[in-house]
Amino acid sequence: MNRRLVFYRAGQLLVLEAMLLILPLIVSLIYGEMICVKAFALTMVIAAVPGLALSFVLRPKTRVFFAKEGFALVSLAWILMSLVGALPYVISGEINSYIDALFETVSGLTTTGATILTDVESMSRGLLFWRSFTHWIGGMGVLVLMMAIIPGNSGRGIHIMRAEMAGPIIGKIVPKIKDTTRILYIIYFCLTALEIILLLAGGMPVFDSVVYSLGTAGTGGFGIKADSIESYSPYVQWVITAFMLLFSVNFNLYYLLILRRFKTFVTNRELWCFGAVVLISAAIIGVSIYPLYNSVGDAARHAFFQVASISSTTGYSTADFDRWPQIAKGVIFLLMFMGGCAGSTAGGLKVSRVMLLFKQMKKEFRRMLHPRSVAVVKLEGKAVDDETLRSVSIYFSVYIVLIALTFIIICVDGFDFQTNLTAAVSCVNNVGPGFGAVGPAFGYSEYSDISTIVLTIAMLLGRLEIYPLILASDPRIWTKGSRKAARP
Amino acid sequence: MNRRLVFYRAGQLLVLEAMLLILPLIVSLIYGEMICVKAFALTMVIAAVPGLALSFVLRPKTRVFFAKEGFALVSLAWILMSLVGALPYVISGEINSYIDALFETVSGLTTTGATILTDVESMSRGLLFWRSFTHWIGGMGVLVLMMAIIPGNSGRGIHIMRAEMAGPIIGKIVPKIKDTTRILYIIYFCLTALEIILLLAGGMPVFDSVVYSLGTAGTGGFGIKADSIESYSPYVQWVITAFMLLFSVNFNLYYLLILRRFKTFVTNRELWCFGAVVLISAAIIGVSIYPLYNSVGDAARHAFFQVASISSTTGYSTADFDRWPQIAKGVIFLLMFMGGCAGSTAGGLKVSRVMLLFKQMKKEFRRMLHPRSVAVVKLEGKAVDDETLRSVSIYFSVYIVLIALTFIIICVDGFDFQTNLTAAVSCVNNVGPGFGAVGPAFGYSEYSDISTIVLTIAMLLGRLEIYPLILASDPRIWTKGSRKAARP
Repeated sequence: MNRRLVFYRAGQLLVLEAMLLILPLIVSLIYGEMICVKAFALTMVIAAVPGLALSFVLRPKTRVFFAKEGFALVSLAWILMSLVGALPYVISGEINSYIDALFETVSGLTTTGATILTDVESMSRGLLFWRSFTHWIGGMGVLVLMMAIIPGNSGRGIHIMRAEMAGPIIGKIVPKIKDTTRILYIIYFCLTALEIILLLAGGMPVFDSVVYSLGTAGTGGFGIKADSIESYSPYVQWVITAFMLLFSVNFNLYYLLILRRFKTFVTNRELWCFGAVVLISAAIIGVSIYPLYNSVGDAARHAFFQVASISSTTGYSTADFDRWPQIAKGVIFLLMFMGGCAGSTAGGLKVSRVMLLFKQMKKEFRRMLHPRSVAVVKLEGKAVDDETLRSVSIYFSVYIVLIALTFIIICVDGFDFQTNLTAAVSCVNNVGPGFGAVGPAFGYSEYSDISTIVLTIAMLLGRLEIYPLILASDPRIWTKGSRKAARP
Repeated sequence: MNRRLVFYRAGQLLVLEAMLLILPLIVSLIYGEMICVKAFALTMVIAAVPGLALSFVLRPKTRVFFAKEGFALVSLAWILMSLVGALPYVISGEINSYIDALFETVSGLTTTGATILTDVESMSRGLLFWRSFTHWIGGMGVLVLMMAIIPGNSGRGIHIMRAEMAGPIIGKIVPKIKDTTRILYIIYFCLTALEIILLLAGGMPVFDSVVYSLGTAGTGGFGIKADSIESYSPYVQWVITAFMLLFSVNFNLYYLLILRRFKTFVTNRELWCFGAVVLISAAIIGVSIYPLYNSVGDAARHAFFQVASISSTTGYSTADFDRWPQIAKGVIFLLMFMGGCAGSTAGGLKVSRVMLLFKQMKKEFRRMLHPRSVAVVKLEGKAVDDETLRSVSIYFSVYIVLIALTFIIICVDGFDFQTNLTAAVSCVNNVGPGFGAVGPAFGYSEYSDISTIVLTIAMLLGRLEIYPLILASDPRIWTKGSRKAARP
């Protein structure tokens, strides 16, 4: 592997993180939180010094990326970003344990939104902003951002995109990766800005509007109130519902809208499938919770909000859904697995992957009756090759094993079955809340250090779709000279 | 499809069931339970008359079986067996609802062992025997039994065996299917007899010994006491532990022992893997429950018993494991999925299928690093073809979807999350008990009729490994003249 190149890029990434920390620093300055200002400034130095050193010393001869380098860089990048991003919480003294701060940062960057904070309303504005800003940074992918803004990142960036972006098939919108990443970030930025404006129009305070928009955009779920979105007006709740869904849609589709290719947009199967799941789930939940609210409007609002929140893997709540009827909880539990569309900021398995799983099952049923039949699985009108199909079903096994392992390790803490299982499912799928002791009314603060670390790793594995971190943990990938074998 | 042949065989099967009912009838006679005698006699008539009619009227011209006929016959056979087998409970008046009686019968035949009875100790001896005898009949497969004993079943019986026996790869021990099925049943019978003798030697009453041996042999789990095995001596508990494990081993291996091919036996990977999982699970559970019992012997006994009971998918208990520490419950929950070895009477995914899933994951990791590498997945020293591997991973998706569907439908009843999820997992894997309201201290009596029916179907689907019933529910399979397409 080209270690020089990987560490060079990792160095650039640390410099980028130092630059990103300017925003929360400004927020802290505005609100006069001087301890936070110092914490952010110090973290910027800690990130920038080794970052600049690496990116000046290691200037690589070749900048061509292969699959191996992609996995290694993505893993290294996310781990470094998290380790550094946790520092402001600890330096400011607002989170005492570094392990807890790391959990909070990884939860932010992976857009999970699970929190170890017990009193979020007492936190400083600067850190609350940083917390939600990590959602925005991690949502689209930090390396995708780097490719978009730092010059000289040509050549096979597709391997980085593949490793960092979620979904079974990653495509380029335009021929050049750099242009693709720029277009994605422009759409991301504009949608976020639009949400801020609409929330402000509803009378939401500026800080709240920005923070909740960042959290929605990344489909993260960190808020600034103990009751999440419950105390805001129905208008605000409906706006957030709409944007949670909008950010769960494949961003490529928005580009098609810009190009006025409406037909391709309207006929997108993944979008229809996602819409159908949302509508059916909301209908089931709405009917089941109607007796609790005795108002069609309220039941519909809570049902749609929660379905949008869970299927987008955001994790905001307008009600303590842990107390809802079992059928509503059952639907919410199953929604955690699917997540949003591929190419969005949502987590979970992704709608298109679930579609491919079901299409494969259908094909298998047919093959059992007609062993000689040749059935082709199609997605969006294109035939999906056998290799991709195989990968999708093996990924599903790997994913279930990850949930099982996470679950069994955190069982040592003695929480009840429901809490442990939903915590594992929620963290791996980057949702946030679960049921029981990790329900929307509570957080992850009670878990022991071991479980906190395991859940942190689970969130990272879930966000990066498992393979990069597993492969990068194999020392053999870091050795030199085996590039030939990895040539794609 | 050759409908004539399928119905002809189904008719023979009903005659076979009528013959099998002689045993519980004799038991009822011995204990002087005349109502039961009448119930069994009446059921025998109900089974035999249409059975004889079908098998005389429909004598088919060709007796060659293809995949389609195999699926259709297996589905029809299991449904008819269950519908008829439920009659004695209702006719005798010991179970009022036919839906409940059907649940109990399917639970018996599928070797699940989940019960809707609230007071098992008040049941008549005849019905208790029939209940446990259904475990023994269903364990190895009723059509396999038919092939073993009824003459003239030559020709492509492998399709019936494949559809009825569990596991990713079904092999013949000897060239002729008929001989294979006979050898399997002889081993099955001898092991059951051995268990009865060992239990009698421990001072267990004759009736108890027979009933618990039938329940162990089929890895079923129906008992005759409210506390399952708890009140029996440690000796009895250890004997049952040993036999639950013995019946979870691939029966082909016992044939190898008879042939003195000890080396092939000892080097069997599936057996080693199963042994390792049992030992590790028992060690974790033993350590975690030690504080409850304060005795190494007791903790080891309970731990091994429960691990053997769950991994063999029997479902007997020596303690209320629902009250054990969460880590013990977590291990038990995960064991429910794996089940025993292929070619045994155990349910679940089967050890070899889980091994193939893990081997595929390993292969996928390697392929991501070295896209051009050609890795071959081996099982028991033989290369497994891609088709089988693909089928195994698609089966896993189908299986998870089945659990999810079962779970979400039974959520309507309002039981807690833990109860519903473990009930679904337990029924699909043919285990029996779950946690919470379906824990070892309770049963399935509280579920509504709809949920009872859904769980009944889930048990059948789980036992027959899903495909046969799904395929047979497609009306197109029952049409004539499409045999060519189904030629293997």
